[in-house]
Amino acid sequence: MQFQHDYFSAYDHLNLTRDSEGVLVAEFHNNGGPCIMSAQGHTEFVDAFYRIGQDRDNKIVILTGAAREFIIDVDWSSFGDVSDPGVWSQVHDEGVQVLENISNIRVPVIAAIEGRAHVHSDYVLLGNVIVAGEGATFQDVAHFAVGVAPGDGIFTTWSYRAGAGRAEAFLLDPKPLPARTAQEWGVVAEVVPNGKALSRARELAKLYLKAPEVTRRNTRVHFIQPLKERIVHEVGYGLSLEGASAAALARSMKAQSESSAQKGKVA
Amino acid sequence: MQFQHDYFSAYDHLNLTRDSEGVLVAEFHNNGGPCIMSAQGHTEFVDAFYRIGQDRDNKIVILTGAAREFIIDVDWSSFGDVSDPGVWSQVHDEGVQVLENISNIRVPVIAAIEGRAHVHSDYVLLGNVIVAGEGATFQDVAHFAVGVAPGDGIFTTWSYRAGAGRAEAFLLDPKPLPARTAQEWGVVAEVVPNGKALSRARELAKLYLKAPEVTRRNTRVHFIQPLKERIVHEVGYGLSLEGASAAALARSMKAQSESSAQKGKVA
Amino acid sequence: MQFQHDYFSAYDHLNLTRDSEGVLVAEFHNNGGPCIMSAQGHTEFVDAFYRIGQDRDNKIVILTGAAREFIIDVDWSSFGDVSDPGVWSQVHDEGVQVLENISNIRVPVIAAIEGRAHVHSDYVLLGNVIVAGEGATFQDVAHFAVGVAPGDGIFTTWSYRAGAGRAEAFLLDPKPLPARTAQEWGVVAEVVPNGKALSRARELAKLYLKAPEVTRRNTRVHFIQPLKERIVHEVGYGLSLEGASAAALARSMKAQSESSAQKGKVA
Amino acid sequence: MQFQHDYFSAYDHLNLTRDSEGVLVAEFHNNGGPCIMSAQGHTEFVDAFYRIGQDRDNKIVILTGAAREFIIDVDWSSFGDVSDPGVWSQVHDEGVQVLENISNIRVPVIAAIEGRAHVHSDYVLLGNVIVAGEGATFQDVAHFAVGVAPGDGIFTTWSYRAGAGRAEAFLLDPKPLPARTAQEWGVVAEVVPNGKALSRARELAKLYLKAPEVTRRNTRVHFIQPLKERIVHEVGYGLSLEGASAAALARSMKAQSESSAQKGKVA
Amino acid sequence: MQFQHDYFSAYDHLNLTRDSEGVLVAEFHNNGGPCIMSAQGHTEFVDAFYRIGQDRDNKIVILTGAAREFIIDVDWSSFGDVSDPGVWSQVHDEGVQVLENISNIRVPVIAAIEGRAHVHSDYVLLGNVIVAGEGATFQDVAHFAVGVAPGDGIFTTWSYRAGAGRAEAFLLDPKPLPARTAQEWGVVAEVVPNGKALSRARELAKLYLKAPEVTRRNTRVHFIQPLKERIVHEVGYGLSLEGASAAALARSMKAQSESSAQKGKVA
Amino acid sequence: MQFQHDYFSAYDHLNLTRDSEGVLVAEFHNNGGPCIMSAQGHTEFVDAFYRIGQDRDNKIVILTGAAREFIIDVDWSSFGDVSDPGVWSQVHDEGVQVLENISNIRVPVIAAIEGRAHVHSDYVLLGNVIVAGEGATFQDVAHFAVGVAPGDGIFTTWSYRAGAGRAEAFLLDPKPLPARTAQEWGVVAEVVPNGKALSRARELAKLYLKAPEVTRRNTRVHFIQPLKERIVHEVGYGLSLEGASAAALARSMKAQSESSAQKGKVA
Repeated sequence: MQFQHDYFSAYDHLNLTRDSEGVLVAEFHNNGGPCIMSAQGHTEFVDAFYRIGQDRDNKIVILTGAAREFIIDVDWSSFGDVSDPGVWSQVHDEGVQVLENISNIRVPVIAAIEGRAHVHSDYVLLGNVIVAGEGATFQDVAHFAVGVAPGDGIFTTWSYRAGAGRAEAFLLDPKPLPARTAQEWGVVAEVVPNGKALSRARELAKLYLKAPEVTRRNTRVHFIQPLKERIVHEVGYGLSLEGASAAALARSMKAQSESSAQKGKVA
Repeated sequence: MQFQHDYFSAYDHLNLTRDSEGVLVAEFHNNGGPCIMSAQGHTEFVDAFYRIGQDRDNKIVILTGAAREFIIDVDWSSFGDVSDPGVWSQVHDEGVQVLENISNIRVPVIAAIEGRAHVHSDYVLLGNVIVAGEGATFQDVAHFAVGVAPGDGIFTTWSYRAGAGRAEAFLLDPKPLPARTAQEWGVVAEVVPNGKALSRARELAKLYLKAPEVTRRNTRVHFIQPLKERIVHEVGYGLSLEGASAAALARSMKAQSESSAQKGKVA
Repeated sequence: MQFQHDYFSAYDHLNLTRDSEGVLVAEFHNNGGPCIMSAQGHTEFVDAFYRIGQDRDNKIVILTGAAREFIIDVDWSSFGDVSDPGVWSQVHDEGVQVLENISNIRVPVIAAIEGRAHVHSDYVLLGNVIVAGEGATFQDVAHFAVGVAPGDGIFTTWSYRAGAGRAEAFLLDPKPLPARTAQEWGVVAEVVPNGKALSRARELAKLYLKAPEVTRRNTRVHFIQPLKERIVHEVGYGLSLEGASAAALARSMKAQSESSAQKGKVA
Repeated sequence: MQFQHDYFSAYDHLNLTRDSEGVLVAEFHNNGGPCIMSAQGHTEFVDAFYRIGQDRDNKIVILTGAAREFIIDVDWSSFGDVSDPGVWSQVHDEGVQVLENISNIRVPVIAAIEGRAHVHSDYVLLGNVIVAGEGATFQDVAHFAVGVAPGDGIFTTWSYRAGAGRAEAFLLDPKPLPARTAQEWGVVAEVVPNGKALSRARELAKLYLKAPEVTRRNTRVHFIQPLKERIVHEVGYGLSLEGASAAALARSMKAQSESSAQKGKVA
Repeated sequence: MQFQHDYFSAYDHLNLTRDSEGVLVAEFHNNGGPCIMSAQGHTEFVDAFYRIGQDRDNKIVILTGAAREFIIDVDWSSFGDVSDPGVWSQVHDEGVQVLENISNIRVPVIAAIEGRAHVHSDYVLLGNVIVAGEGATFQDVAHFAVGVAPGDGIFTTWSYRAGAGRAEAFLLDPKPLPARTAQEWGVVAEVVPNGKALSRARELAKLYLKAPEVTRRNTRVHFIQPLKERIVHEVGYGLSLEGASAAALARSMKAQSESSAQKGKVA
Repeated sequence: MQFQHDYFSAYDHLNLTRDSEGVLVAEFHNNGGPCIMSAQGHTEFVDAFYRIGQDRDNKIVILTGAAREFIIDVDWSSFGDVSDPGVWSQVHDEGVQVLENISNIRVPVIAAIEGRAHVHSDYVLLGNVIVAGEGATFQDVAHFAVGVAPGDGIFTTWSYRAGAGRAEAFLLDPKPLPARTAQEWGVVAEVVPNGKALSRARELAKLYLKAPEVTRRNTRVHFIQPLKERIVHEVGYGLSLEGASAAALARSMKAQSESSAQKGKVA
């Protein structure tokens, strides 16, 4: 397709490699080290997953992270003034779009997780099957832990796969959730020795490749449809609620710092 | 708000107390002892939860029961002749409304459960997080056990949080479900020593209070929305089906007692 | 019901009168003249429609306006700083709640419209039947016309009753819509001579009163359910989008006025 | 299919004839005259439309009525004591099932209407295309007009095709709706001279038969799906609400007649 | 009901027996041995479950299999050329209809499973309660294992009862799932010694029979409604995706065999 | 955004021009003449509307056609062998994606239609407002008219905006629908003299530009959400049904031509 210029090398936070059978590995990273979410990454991932989804030469997609981690933290400051509605409008639009774009990858998606999946594990839960190293942990350090409502899909996906009760407690009192517990909850499909998640994901990919292409594509389409509908239904609103929450936090922090500065001046 | 007259002391079956940080504890009871559901309580709870939801001075809401029990039984006779469509019309309208009103409490809701939650545990499952004493048990003694279809939200909430298969078996063959099993099912978030549920709930409340108010409110709004939609979608119909079932039961019991009386006369 | 203190005289912007047959007329007004929407009214209406809905002595409800108008304008300034997330949080919560509360009036609701229904005609469209004087007009002067996204239910209700295409054009380029056109669109049921809307509504009320009470209540419940589900599904998000839009507008107006002031200083 | 015994001659209230091209005409009748709805017919139609839907030799289905009428009245008494929950349980189950069965006719359905479609015009509105004689009228004489809530699909189908506002007014104040008005509302596709509806329906059938069979079947499946989903979602609840309403009416009528009888005795 | 000819003896692959209390046992089989799914069975089951659902003399329905197995395999060849759209049209229509028909059995449905439920375990998951012998296993040998997309309801039902993550992994890498694991997943309600599933199901049936008939029927109606809505919403599309997948497989197999034949000729 | 290479000149069938205020005009064409739909265009439009939607410099989007026509015909042969599931898989994936991508243009979309909108008028109906020249006509020459089921969004969008009854008749018996009739149906917002649609659309764009950017974006997001949800819900299945229908047609045509050829040979 002529519209697909070379996206493989287009992103600073995503290494894309594809083998001869069409198994694409998308590795999140920061300069080759563990990925930290930022505004730039947010924008990149929207584009990257769209192109990945449109490229019919991708036969299986594996999501993973560099340096035996997935995404370990978020750099909220990179997003600028989140109390500015114009700034948040972009976060909202991109935040919905990236999840729709991963949903629209119409081939099986496997997640291979090592270490910390502490930010945007919703990307992971859009995979059909999650393989995790035994030391992997899931957490949400980007929302309630720092005073922001978890509205960007993290609840929708965890609620969908783990059940709402677990998701609510997990997000309100965020602590590392071991891979084994995530497996008991029905989220992780397989726990493997540390460092073996990607190789096991490749084995599964090989297995899936035995089915005809239309079978693989249509299986993905069928499996992801109910979650895609929930994302389309819930995440825009969630991100709006998160935006108001982030704006409230930003205002109160600004008020506090001005008040401190004022006190400093006075003193 | 001027419209909110003093609701704290308005209810016979609900003790309401609020600390200086806005943590409201709503304690179900009968004269200070364990709560038994009745028509009067049914009507009260509709009003109480509406006012609790509208009062923006409530920052966190904790649901609990008096005397180390939640709700232990139902007094069906207090509802009058449930085969009278006019009587059931009120049960239907109130039954939908009370669940919508709890859903519309737009601050985190924690349930602290000790002892028997054997009636209207659906109220409990509308909390975001459930803390249970290790001796707590869940059961539904108000429906199938006495010959009535469980249509008032008990299935909707248990199905939402525990999965449909567990909910169906649990409601068709009602036996006490231990807190630990409810935790394995993803319904109870934390099991604590007996008598410690409320104090643990207060700790969680303190934790949640660290987040800005808009964050707390919007997190609740986002988390409860899918269950609220299911309630709006399912519970009216459920209560209608339950009403027809209750009417059939009432008629058969009346027929039996008339037949017995008749036999008595004859003899 | 003991919890229902005397709500008939509780509101500054709503006259409530009920005849001996239980036909309640709710008349929107400002000091007896045409109603202008304000923050105070917004809060009042939430409470008023809840109580109206809960009071089983109301057999039919008629919505109308004083002085041969419905609601003619909005006082945006009364809402305070809408770019403050704490302020908008209340608008959001009330805005959803008021529409749910009107939906939860479980007896037939008739709207009797004269003059301008230029603000919150969504309240009108929650009636089962709308009777309009031939000079009545519908418009939305509170949203796009002043630079705010129409997210508070005005689109949801107009789209539901008039069709989406008409609703979108009507709200993006707001001009007075004559009663006759609203009738052609399927929104208004009957057009009557000016000044006769309320008396025709009373005639319809009398007609409906011939049916048994359960019939009247259940008919309303059945008819409103699909719109209620759309409201629960759409309006929270809509109000969040409207809030961000109002905040953006407020910021740009503040920036403009500061820039003007600055220029004044400089000069 | 061996399971399909000869259903063509199985029904007292439905004449079934099929031409060589597979165009099945289903004609509602009472002894060859205009059809009057009864409990027996209700049960028959469930079975008939199921078999019609399963029989792949039916290529097009035309619904019509005998003697230049559709269904002109209902014999409520034939249903027995509708305040008996066991009786209404059957009405409920059949009432949902018949609409699902018509929806599951997976070939184009054309309705050819002459005269009065005054009962169960919801059957008509499950057709893809409605052709009406210019003197045809639609009305609902079976529900609100006699004090019963219109919950059996009549609102769902009219709301779906005509819009909710029109449907609500039409059902609350039932008067004959001329075919031309129904056409303006988007319900009737074509108005033809009296007596020509069936022949025009046959012409349309011939037109549709030009398309391949899979095209015809899949077009029907696609077109009916949204209405089928609304029926599955709404009509069970609607029938429950109607049942409670009918029971209330029956009780009040019984009370009145007993009170008259009592007065008679006393006097 | 006169339309119900004697369906008890109508099916080659389903033994139907009913005791004096109305407990119907439907036993899947092939000549008395373990059932193997075929095109003939597919067509039969549609009809059988419809009649079972319509027959109000059935008070409880138990689904089970002959010879201590449920359904052990599928004979894909019996369906003919699945790449012929006319052939698949029938599979699609029947496949949706059979699941709707089981959903429309409006009395409690219990599944008693021994041995292999390796094909169409979706039928099993439409039961309210599943009792399994400890040696029972669940698997899907009919879809991905042979290169076909699992779109016929197997994902919808497993996702509904076990959670989506488990369902996806289970269907993509199909291996026998022991009854105990299915119980941990919330799918199986009770595990009993081998050979005891049916007798335990009969005990449960006896228990349920204590409730009034309307209670039993309405409980089923209420419990199955959310799954029925998912089936109506998802399975038609799923079967279409499966059909395209099966057609692709058939074409590639045909191409391979032609190519082999060609090579054979050449050689 | 770096990922957006210069898409303005990337498409053979879409001219893109944008004025200094950010009003983008997207003009469908074939070599500057009226647009004819083809496989190449289908692929292009997916990409084009995605980029248009992602480019935040687009403030308003106007859809129109070259040479005073919209899209006048379809070149089915360009799609290749539609009975090959691999071929249709791409049509399915693209067909869903293009409608989602237009829905995800998060600024007001205006359609300016002259002449024939006889193919893919669903693109048009994804606009918020449609302006049509008085000679414009709508029709669907690509589906039922040539023996294919109209499943690609044409029914979903027409049903959403015009009502299901009109949409079904319009698609089953496709004839040119005048702009005035489309206006009466609520689809077209304004009818203007021939040749004036685009200039009127530009006037509306200017009007909308007065609102702040967040207002414009959020208004679009709110207005399109219900239709976007219907598209996500319905169109994948619709396209699958259409694919099976197209395959059946292709097979029957091939069989006919082979049979003719055979007869030729024989003779």
